[in-house]
Amino acid sequence: MKALAIDLGGTHATCAIVEDSRILYSRHLDLDSAQGLGSVLPLFTTTLRELLGEASLAARDCAGLAISSCGLVDSVNQKILSSPKKWDDAPSVDFIAWSRREFSLPIKMENDARMALMGERYAGAGRGCNDLAMITLGTGIGTAVMIGGALLHGKHFQAGNQGGHQPLDVNGRTCTCSGIGCAEAEGAGWALPQIAKDWPGFRESALAKEPAVNFEALFRVAAAGDPVATQIQARCLNVWAAAAVGIIHAFDPDVVIFGGGVLKSADLIIPFIQSHVNQHTWSPWGKAQIRAAALGNNAGLLGAIPLLTTA
Amino acid sequence: MKALAIDLGGTHATCAIVEDSRILYSRHLDLDSAQGLGSVLPLFTTTLRELLGEASLAARDCAGLAISSCGLVDSVNQKILSSPKKWDDAPSVDFIAWSRREFSLPIKMENDARMALMGERYAGAGRGCNDLAMITLGTGIGTAVMIGGALLHGKHFQAGNQGGHQPLDVNGRTCTCSGIGCAEAEGAGWALPQIAKDWPGFRESALAKEPAVNFEALFRVAAAGDPVATQIQARCLNVWAAAAVGIIHAFDPDVVIFGGGVLKSADLIIPFIQSHVNQHTWSPWGKAQIRAAALGNNAGLLGAIPLLTTA
Repeated sequence: MKALAIDLGGTHATCAIVEDSRILYSRHLDLDSAQGLGSVLPLFTTTLRELLGEASLAARDCAGLAISSCGLVDSVNQKILSSPKKWDDAPSVDFIAWSRREFSLPIKMENDARMALMGERYAGAGRGCNDLAMITLGTGIGTAVMIGGALLHGKHFQAGNQGGHQPLDVNGRTCTCSGIGCAEAEGAGWALPQIAKDWPGFRESALAKEPAVNFEALFRVAAAGDPVATQIQARCLNVWAAAAVGIIHAFDPDVVIFGGGVLKSADLIIPFIQSHVNQHTWSPWGKAQIRAAALGNNAGLLGAIPLLTTA
Repeated sequence: MKALAIDLGGTHATCAIVEDSRILYSRHLDLDSAQGLGSVLPLFTTTLRELLGEASLAARDCAGLAISSCGLVDSVNQKILSSPKKWDDAPSVDFIAWSRREFSLPIKMENDARMALMGERYAGAGRGCNDLAMITLGTGIGTAVMIGGALLHGKHFQAGNQGGHQPLDVNGRTCTCSGIGCAEAEGAGWALPQIAKDWPGFRESALAKEPAVNFEALFRVAAAGDPVATQIQARCLNVWAAAAVGIIHAFDPDVVIFGGGVLKSADLIIPFIQSHVNQHTWSPWGKAQIRAAALGNNAGLLGAIPLLTTA
């Protein structure tokens, strides 16, 4: 089965044609969210048409169009409910009408964290698993949960999706969501520069000499033996492990998949979190398995087929 | 509709006959968990028969027997999976056979936190609500979640049930569950004496002169102006509020009901938590409502009819 797919972030998007668990053709687009999502749609139309042309396919060869989107997504009515600080006009965009008009295709939309979970379950680290959670570590922390083979949505499409905003430190940092000590505020990429700056000894550390304080720099400088970077890395690992414990105790999964660029260091991260989970979760049936994502940035696009084929 | 009902705790039980949202007859039993649950069953038989006699009813006048139990409950197979430090023999007890033999009645079992939620929804503070969570503050912290009118169970019956073990302090106290900084370790009745003992200035505080450091004493001494008790009370309120935020961000409910003996101080607790939730949750649709439980210790028994009539 083939499908059109769009993975929509806050500053970029990828348009693609997928066939089952393969991405046949894809194109990365840099976007300026200030111009509004409504005015970006024609670019998606053009790009998808070009990809169809390259593939010698017509839109009718595809089962539908699947969009993985940042923000809060109403996957029943195919709407973006809220995309704070990214696409302010998103709630007013009529994707169903656009897809029908331009491609005569049915459209389905889902939040990007849920799409990554669907992709990993369909073609990656979650194959065969009906009870799983996914935690993506990046600029933010995205989470999604599947119970008994069904994505968890909740009344307002937020259930399982806000794991980046579970409070992990009752006296912690203020989050962009206005929460206190959220997983994101204590361990997401956006918070890392300030966490580092506030760390005792940071100014004298090798990390302070880096052009940008991000996870790549943190892990590299820590690996080189810098004591401050090692301490901050340990703090991040503890926060991510606590986030895993919180999600396991909340949603009772068999498997938790960690994704995001920092998982380049999976050899260090996964055993640490698995060991923490083994020690600090209570689950008489056994222990949830911690796995690294297998699909990288392709996970959301590879969620297209399962999304379009799920009732 | 009438039903037999048992509310089983670790040191006591209540046997009852309920009719719709009323408890017709009930009897409290003090129990010694050391003797094992299997050997307590004959006492339940005798007590329920006595209650039926007082009510001039026969077992066949009842739709079934409902058990609200502490511990982890398999509500599909009517088994107690684990009841740590309470009823060690519980997993081996065959409740279905017992109920059939003694009363010729079908039996359904559920975890006590879920039963309290069902009771409050049927006859108390959760009426008309399909998306709600319940948090019971007591010796431990029990939680349960309903999404779209269905209790959340998860693969191993733990989903929504372990809110007392969501990590709220990444560098916090070790919990009985082996977790770190769990809601219980930071704000349950069992942890309070140690939290108080470790508090700076505790020994000189009025709280130290109390025969027992429990929530009743804490709130009373704080109300009398003791500064240390006031600080510890503020810490507990913050922990409970953070637990509410965690549950709202995890499960996306409209309503969170707080129960437990300390809710005698609902006038202080509920507005504090509501204000915290209003400030520190992210939910574009509005804010989850915080309510005090209405049924007290009867909530679990009043879950009997909805439990028996839910497929």
